[in-house]
Amino acid sequence: MTDQEYMQKALIEAKQAFEEGEVPVGAVIVCRDRIIARAHNLTERLTDVTAHAEMQAITAAANALGGKYLTDCTLYVTVEPCVMCAGALAWAQLSRIVYGASDPKRGFSVFAPNALHPRTEVTEGVLAEECANLMKDFFQRRR
Amino acid sequence: MTDQEYMQKALIEAKQAFEEGEVPVGAVIVCRDRIIARAHNLTERLTDVTAHAEMQAITAAANALGGKYLTDCTLYVTVEPCVMCAGALAWAQLSRIVYGASDPKRGFSVFAPNALHPRTEVTEGVLAEECANLMKDFFQRRR
Repeated sequence: MTDQEYMQKALIEAKQAFEEGEVPVGAVIVCRDRIIARAHNLTERLTDVTAHAEMQAITAAANALGGKYLTDCTLYVTVEPCVMCAGALAWAQLSRIVYGASDPKRGFSVFAPNALHPRTEVTEGVLAEECANLMKDFFQRRR
Repeated sequence: MTDQEYMQKALIEAKQAFEEGEVPVGAVIVCRDRIIARAHNLTERLTDVTAHAEMQAITAAANALGGKYLTDCTLYVTVEPCVMCAGALAWAQLSRIVYGASDPKRGFSVFAPNALHPRTEVTEGVLAEECANLMKDFFQRRR
């Protein structure tokens, strides 16, 4: 599967979040061409600021693999990770991170550009418009 | 209770982690002079890099209060928070963070000095030596 196809899977998760009234961010983690974790933001349902899509995907992927390091894994996430999630991705040592929309207000690349593990490769802008539109639509409806 | 006394409670948690073979970091969260959460590092037991003391304390405190923001709370943690935990503490909007030992290798103040919420007050160095010695002792025994 291509980056676009995996990002579509992350978008399915983000749309699920949207329908549940959660900020619409979705993520999947892929290990050797297999999706081993799918998650979406659950901060409202769990009343927990740490319940971002990426955090839950990391926990689920480690569970699936039986080890805490995700060195052969790629994370696909619809929106640029925040500082917390970038820090978690660093600890987990993912080999690659692919994100859709940039987040100039909360994204790690603005506030903690060195947060990721030095060996982690980053690809941005995959299906960026679709990922960003979902966020815009969500916040417009909330106003 | 004083900062030192609350840090002693965090140290009890850190010592518990030590005995369990976990990196010895402990945390408590205090809201209006009452401890509402106690936690220690559980990354090994849970096989989860996100299971830092601070992360679990945030989740537990939000649960205790029934809301995800910890604006009237102080976190006491034996070691300087990492980037992930600093990002989480920012989302939770704690009013104050008190830590013991500095962590020049992983601490947020080196890698993401702007990670915390701008209104969060930080106090460092409370029982620093005792907190640091527990870490040193742990890593020396592991060698």
